[in-house]
Amino acid sequence: MLKLYYAPNTCALASHIALEEAGATYETVRLNFKTDDQKKPEYLKINPKARVPALITDRGIITETPAILIYVAQTYPAAKLAPLDDPFALAKVQAFNSYLCSTVHVAHAHRMRGTRWTDDAAAIESMKKKVPQTVGDCFALIEREMFEGPWVMGTHYSVCDAYLFTLSQWLGGDGVDINKTPKIADHFRRMSERPAVRAAVTDETRELQSAA
Amino acid sequence: MLKLYYAPNTCALASHIALEEAGATYETVRLNFKTDDQKKPEYLKINPKARVPALITDRGIITETPAILIYVAQTYPAAKLAPLDDPFALAKVQAFNSYLCSTVHVAHAHRMRGTRWTDDAAAIESMKKKVPQTVGDCFALIEREMFEGPWVMGTHYSVCDAYLFTLSQWLGGDGVDINKTPKIADHFRRMSERPAVRAAVTDETRELQSAA
Repeated sequence: MLKLYYAPNTCALASHIALEEAGATYETVRLNFKTDDQKKPEYLKINPKARVPALITDRGIITETPAILIYVAQTYPAAKLAPLDDPFALAKVQAFNSYLCSTVHVAHAHRMRGTRWTDDAAAIESMKKKVPQTVGDCFALIEREMFEGPWVMGTHYSVCDAYLFTLSQWLGGDGVDINKTPKIADHFRRMSERPAVRAAVTDETRELQSAA
Repeated sequence: MLKLYYAPNTCALASHIALEEAGATYETVRLNFKTDDQKKPEYLKINPKARVPALITDRGIITETPAILIYVAQTYPAAKLAPLDDPFALAKVQAFNSYLCSTVHVAHAHRMRGTRWTDDAAAIESMKKKVPQTVGDCFALIEREMFEGPWVMGTHYSVCDAYLFTLSQWLGGDGVDINKTPKIADHFRRMSERPAVRAAVTDETRELQSAA
């Protein structure tokens, strides 16, 4: 059975939502980043990058959100989560996901994970200060240039919607007002009401009884 | 006809190599980053992110290296540049490409593009100092955990090889000795001899006669 390793408030939620949308049978394993579960030897055997998500399949382990999203779409084709047989349309999906992982998520990470790129405390503080601008610019660009509506790719819901929703959740903490991007704000509200999203979010926010 | 917008010494080389490996008919347009071609209005119409690569197709424009690489593989299936019909194997390809774009390229970018994440000159200098460590750690992880050999994914050459070669080119400038990762050093040498790689590199390094 598929097994998703995740931690609350991380990008792993996108994969979690995709599994729900696909109607997959899977289980989840929660890591607690506060106790550095992701750096413990048993998890480094699963993902030596010490990150989430990681998806265990019967063939082996898959990491990285864009990879997991397309894998779920490809192995549950009935859910139509990506235009797999249309190379151009799939490339648009992939370009969107790639922008989120390589630019938007990275901009956000400079608020809490500055030690990845510098050891200087003053530099880390200066990075934090720019996050509202950099993340805000990214979302303004998505709103203006990428978001087709009503879903990211237009009339068809796709894995991009799960991924955008996941990063939209971080806007408040990043000092960005989601209402400055009204299409994304509306998307966030509509996503919050989808049964698959509610199921994934509920699972991730239930009492942390087994997370220690 | 396909048209690839690139700039020398950027990750666009990976897409350029893939087009060569595919035997595609295409033309290239060189941007000069020293004169900020990528920020000029005519290019922002092509890619509002002000980045390369951008691939013009008869259906529209594709950006982001991982998206272009899979698009080339999918539209030139005879070249067998990705395991398109094997979801798990494709996910491994995608996970590798995603790691390169979201972690390895980002680590590298803190040497020359620090202004993306801070406006403080001292912070930018402190970021530069950590690049040999962060990029070196990434390549050590690739060597130890991801690189199957003789190609990235094992016996079959794939778009991952073009992408790894492209980022390997930057190691010297990043203060990382490629010989500390002997499998990647050997890969780099073998890649340098492939006709497709030589063709792409030759095109990108020819006299900058039309770049102004």
